[in-house]
Amino acid sequence: MPSSTPSQAREWRLISRPRNVPGESDFELVEAPVPAAGEGQLLVRNTWMSVDPSARLRMQEDTSQYLPAFELGGALEGWAVGEVVESRAPGFSVGDSVLHQLGWRDYALLGVDGGSRAAPELLPPEDDVPPREYLGTLSWVGLTAYVGLLDVAELRPDDVVFVSAGAGAVGGLAIQIAKLRGHRVIASAGSSEKVSYIREVLGADAAFCYRDGPAVEQLAACAPDGIDVYFDNVGGEQLEAALELMRLHGRVALCGAISTYNGEDRAPGPRNLFNAVARGLTLRGFLARMYAHRMLDFRDEMRGWLAGGRIVYAEHRYAGLEQAPRALIDLFSGINVGKVLVQIDDDDGDER
Amino acid sequence: MPSSTPSQAREWRLISRPRNVPGESDFELVEAPVPAAGEGQLLVRNTWMSVDPSARLRMQEDTSQYLPAFELGGALEGWAVGEVVESRAPGFSVGDSVLHQLGWRDYALLGVDGGSRAAPELLPPEDDVPPREYLGTLSWVGLTAYVGLLDVAELRPDDVVFVSAGAGAVGGLAIQIAKLRGHRVIASAGSSEKVSYIREVLGADAAFCYRDGPAVEQLAACAPDGIDVYFDNVGGEQLEAALELMRLHGRVALCGAISTYNGEDRAPGPRNLFNAVARGLTLRGFLARMYAHRMLDFRDEMRGWLAGGRIVYAEHRYAGLEQAPRALIDLFSGINVGKVLVQIDDDDGDER
Repeated sequence: MPSSTPSQAREWRLISRPRNVPGESDFELVEAPVPAAGEGQLLVRNTWMSVDPSARLRMQEDTSQYLPAFELGGALEGWAVGEVVESRAPGFSVGDSVLHQLGWRDYALLGVDGGSRAAPELLPPEDDVPPREYLGTLSWVGLTAYVGLLDVAELRPDDVVFVSAGAGAVGGLAIQIAKLRGHRVIASAGSSEKVSYIREVLGADAAFCYRDGPAVEQLAACAPDGIDVYFDNVGGEQLEAALELMRLHGRVALCGAISTYNGEDRAPGPRNLFNAVARGLTLRGFLARMYAHRMLDFRDEMRGWLAGGRIVYAEHRYAGLEQAPRALIDLFSGINVGKVLVQIDDDDGDER
Repeated sequence: MPSSTPSQAREWRLISRPRNVPGESDFELVEAPVPAAGEGQLLVRNTWMSVDPSARLRMQEDTSQYLPAFELGGALEGWAVGEVVESRAPGFSVGDSVLHQLGWRDYALLGVDGGSRAAPELLPPEDDVPPREYLGTLSWVGLTAYVGLLDVAELRPDDVVFVSAGAGAVGGLAIQIAKLRGHRVIASAGSSEKVSYIREVLGADAAFCYRDGPAVEQLAACAPDGIDVYFDNVGGEQLEAALELMRLHGRVALCGAISTYNGEDRAPGPRNLFNAVARGLTLRGFLARMYAHRMLDFRDEMRGWLAGGRIVYAEHRYAGLEQAPRALIDLFSGINVGKVLVQIDDDDGDER
């Protein structure tokens, strides 16, 4: 149970917009009195927060209509789980676990009416998974991998699948979901350690390190007969390579383009987009929130896989809210394997 | 009726692969004896041939798996209509009109077995449309416009539609089909005369000349609330502009990229492909032959529109087989409006 509520709360604010990789000086940790819940509100003590590449995009002024840009001088946001410490909202009690979007702080004041993005989701108390799983396998991260393959790329029997950023949270799940459905899977990552992890732990049939040579040559070596589906987390050179290797009526799920997020100028697109005409290819972009209606289907299927021990899911954890900017900065150095989480406070010691 | 068959036949051969816009010196007109039909073959006297941007692509060694490259020293190919002058194939008689893919010559020897690309299609004699209409409104050109909108871009009620190369054969039909279905249509072309034609004759709601200023600014002025569908005939800057103006869940039918066909290097793709992620956009390439199963539906609907006088269709005609290379070269100078055809020989004087 929580220790008695301290009088001071901390939150990370954005104080300058980075032009390239963010630095610690772009962030400021600010203390303020812990707020009190108003009518229809909850006060939540955050226990874990998710660190996502999308936060980097939201530090820019122009997010290309992705998610709203963070305000300069305002608190950052992101997925978090926590425990209700004060409730003036029906349906929520002190001690409940909730999932919400006001990470980057240790106390979140959440409205439950109006359906705003920040409306919290009550997590089932009887669940045998720790709440932070709702930042991972059972979260938007998992939904992204699931709908990216099944809905966006319209995965079909016998498709050969290529996944970039295969050691990342989304990519790692995409590899495993495709394998669980019986596909041949090729994946890429940025170090030989990650490549081993992808092959030996996640079960990809072939993998390559994109730093070792031209992506198109390495992909061709892994997929001599071509590919049908590309789950694109990175954009850039690997997207071009995938378009080169695509077979007739292949499909690309455009999930993100982390290789381009830190550039000041917008990177040019693939030089071989004409292949899409010649081969009848489909490139479809998506955000998981566009597939919110699939969350229950996804969680049902994922819970089955988790219960059967069929899913490997790595976490890269940082201890303490003060580590949050570092965790985001590290995301672009490629040192993390799996989902990047920051433990903000004790959550009753649930350990896997 | 045909004059008596001469003993010499002519065909255009490719003698060098152009690095930029093709020149007359890339082609050679070669005479040879008129062949005789073997068992299962037809000899056809060509009357009209179609000149398509795709011929430029096929002059390259690497066609990105579009259609087979023309062989150096071999005859060019392309859609043509003609009259059977000798038949040793069941189902075809002397005097029948046929549609086939061996243009660029005045006599075509066609096999009817094996389902090869060159297998001729018997045109209905009772039809009240001249045979060359099967190189135009009722052809793959029309099918391209039709399925590009309906199947590839999945046109939905109230979609705002943008069509590039709107004064071209495919673009002009795409504008009119979208208008016949009740959509707001914006189109672009390369001269003020074409822009007037698009607005005043084809009925587009707004149009701009892409040479007059940045495409993104001009498109934004024509579509202040954005667009939902882009029928892309050109690639390049206009594709980037369309992606910038696309609304949530917008769709791009990638039909061709004439702006890039003459470059020696492959042009970079749009710098704003990430918009596809943020807005859930779909880009889908296609060739009409991938939608051959829709030809009958299309012709039914198009015949109705033609009979009702609902379709304007311009032809840009060249007289004589010797003009064929010039017709292709001119395609890239932008002087043509509508479908480019070469009249190879008299077809009983059917004039519209």
